[in-house]
Amino acid sequence: MPQLSPRITTLNGDGDDGWGVFYRARTMIAAGTPVTELTIGEHDIGTDTSILAEIHRSAAAGHTGYAMVPGVRALRDTVAARIAERTGVPTTYENILITPGGQAALFAAHMAVLSPGDAGLFIEPYYAVYPGTVRAASGQPLPVPTNAEDAFLPTYDQISAATRSAPRARSLLINTPNNPTGTIYPRETLDGIARACRAHDLWLISDEVYDTQVWEGEHLSPRALPGMEDRTLVIGSMSKSHAMTGSRIGWICAPAEVIPPLIDLATNTTYGVPGYIQDAALFALTAGPELETSVAEPFRRRRALALSILEGQDIVRVIPSRGAMYLMLDIRATGLDGQDFANRLLDAHRIAVMPGESFGTSGAGHLRVALTVADDRLAAALDTLTTFAANLARETA
Amino acid sequence: MPQLSPRITTLNGDGDDGWGVFYRARTMIAAGTPVTELTIGEHDIGTDTSILAEIHRSAAAGHTGYAMVPGVRALRDTVAARIAERTGVPTTYENILITPGGQAALFAAHMAVLSPGDAGLFIEPYYAVYPGTVRAASGQPLPVPTNAEDAFLPTYDQISAATRSAPRARSLLINTPNNPTGTIYPRETLDGIARACRAHDLWLISDEVYDTQVWEGEHLSPRALPGMEDRTLVIGSMSKSHAMTGSRIGWICAPAEVIPPLIDLATNTTYGVPGYIQDAALFALTAGPELETSVAEPFRRRRALALSILEGQDIVRVIPSRGAMYLMLDIRATGLDGQDFANRLLDAHRIAVMPGESFGTSGAGHLRVALTVADDRLAAALDTLTTFAANLARETA
Ligand SMILES: Cc1ncc(COP(=O)(O)O)c(C=O)c1O
Ligand SMILES: Cc1ncc(COP(=O)(O)O)c(C=O)c1O
Repeated sequence: MPQLSPRITTLNGDGDDGWGVFYRARTMIAAGTPVTELTIGEHDIGTDTSILAEIHRSAAAGHTGYAMVPGVRALRDTVAARIAERTGVPTTYENILITPGGQAALFAAHMAVLSPGDAGLFIEPYYAVYPGTVRAASGQPLPVPTNAEDAFLPTYDQISAATRSAPRARSLLINTPNNPTGTIYPRETLDGIARACRAHDLWLISDEVYDTQVWEGEHLSPRALPGMEDRTLVIGSMSKSHAMTGSRIGWICAPAEVIPPLIDLATNTTYGVPGYIQDAALFALTAGPELETSVAEPFRRRRALALSILEGQDIVRVIPSRGAMYLMLDIRATGLDGQDFANRLLDAHRIAVMPGESFGTSGAGHLRVALTVADDRLAAALDTLTTFAANLARETA
Repeated sequence: MPQLSPRITTLNGDGDDGWGVFYRARTMIAAGTPVTELTIGEHDIGTDTSILAEIHRSAAAGHTGYAMVPGVRALRDTVAARIAERTGVPTTYENILITPGGQAALFAAHMAVLSPGDAGLFIEPYYAVYPGTVRAASGQPLPVPTNAEDAFLPTYDQISAATRSAPRARSLLINTPNNPTGTIYPRETLDGIARACRAHDLWLISDEVYDTQVWEGEHLSPRALPGMEDRTLVIGSMSKSHAMTGSRIGWICAPAEVIPPLIDLATNTTYGVPGYIQDAALFALTAGPELETSVAEPFRRRRALALSILEGQDIVRVIPSRGAMYLMLDIRATGLDGQDFANRLLDAHRIAVMPGESFGTSGAGHLRVALTVADDRLAAALDTLTTFAANLARETA
């Protein structure tokens, strides 16, 4: 066999980065052992039947041929109007490329702004796929460490320091509302990010796929900040907002000059998105706010439930949570790191959570809990987890 | 605005490469002028309703969440069995990655085997997206010229010559049955290709998306040739075989060691294919041969019709056609190049065909005619085209 390109054999970096717990839980479940699965960033409901009916209607009406590569015009218009309305930034279909999911949009954005060898920055703790996405675009992944004590909100100085270590830094990827931390970046944080992007001439790639999951305060898109419209690529998706994870549909919102080369790229990488899925996305986005609200509602409710359980103790500290379908828990008072804690919790109680280490070293000593199981199971799991943590803390004291 | 990566701004190479005719036809149609459109590589029928029903059944049954990135197991098994049966090469799901279309498979294959700056070879005349696909993977596109007199079948010597001009040649992309020429590579041609790949340590990327459109002789997959299994990546798709162009589903068949890194790549570039579309593909592949035969039938019929019309004259020579949904016509006897001929034909008779120049310089003086309109319109268009050519030939004589 001839050699493969190193870029494809080194996508994962080194080590399992804490994914061992996840795979062990999978194996236990496959072997019939019941496990409370709090690792997964996906709704416990399927896509709404009204959306599925629209897929079928569109397909039966004959929308089964190649769709226009940039996306169907009505969907591009609707996504643009939605963004314009929420941000106040004038936006038209010429700013929008429809992609087969938010992940494809993240990849395309990095392909557009990085040349091979350029550094792509992202904030730690990070969505686990980020380093591989930068590597897939032949970039050098460069995490920007943050502090648990600041709720993992990045500062101008932290970004600048990372930039100084990478002469070829070209982009900064942020995510708010945030996976894994559940934080939402306040205006001061976004101002610092914007200032750093301008000072170091970075593209800002703003992953806003959780923008409909806001429990406290409000989501601000950095594209709306002064001087940022021309250097910001916004990543959107129907996955989280409309429980359409499997349908693979999302978008990039970019300066109008960036869309034609992105269309050229899409022509060569994916050749567009099924027309009937685009029609269904259009239906979902224009169906009124109830659909979106109902998809978000269980997470809002479970977050409140979880916070009330966690309030009753002081060993497990919760990172101030304002959005997304996760809680980040600081378990350093137990004396264990996240990986150790998560493995022991899985063995002792068959509860699977993600060790913070899976999201970069800044997340060490933390756990990410996905709010993606039924309320009673979540409550029981958190009761068990806090008791387990308290016992550990007593032992090590 | 910060700079974009040159790799995304130069994807199209230079010039319109003969696509001017295509866009002019589009503009005329949009303005209400009826044009006989013989440029498009897409069926004039939609996806069969039985396949659409299966999409709906699967989605309604709840297959709307993230599907496994490599593809659902049953579909991988079925694709593998199909390939094993047709080629005699033992093949399992571990050789298969499901992709969102043949184009995504072509891109992934090049990402896997090229490192930035490596040369990716392909045979001229070529499917118009090939050079951009190599560029999107940060490779150097290197067309291998062939001769009309040899029906554009590539030889060992032609490939070797191209390889010698590119010290970093790493891959060769071929396509049989061929778009644009309608040829099917006979065993001797494939033997020469295989010998060249072994001699120059090239990966062979074998685009077989037209493998169900065989009108004469048989399709041979070069993966079945001695010593080739370990260096061949086969590209497949449901687009042409099952008129599922819009559904975006295809695959790569590769040595088992190549699949895990390809899965890593897919995790970062697309994150899988909708589960309900995979279920529908599985249904279509296991529904028996009638579905496939009925999709191919109109092209078989129209090719015979076209050949009978072309037999009645000797100005327009047809490249020996054995498969795919195209005919390649040599119009050099008219004294015009393909682009000039196609532009004049569009202006005079509102018939749009692709100039051979759009497929690389080897195609100069030729036209590609897609067999994708109803029989009577095709017949009328070919009658007009041959008369037009005869008149031109008389004028220049
Ligand atoms: C932060 C973040 N960005 C992007 C995605 C990708 O979502 P999709 O590709 O389904 O749109 C996810 C999915 O988990 C995510 O958590
Ligand atoms: C030669 C060839 N390869 C690949 C493709 C891509 O097909 P798809 O991405 O729809 O599977 C096409 C489509 O026209 C083609 O002609």
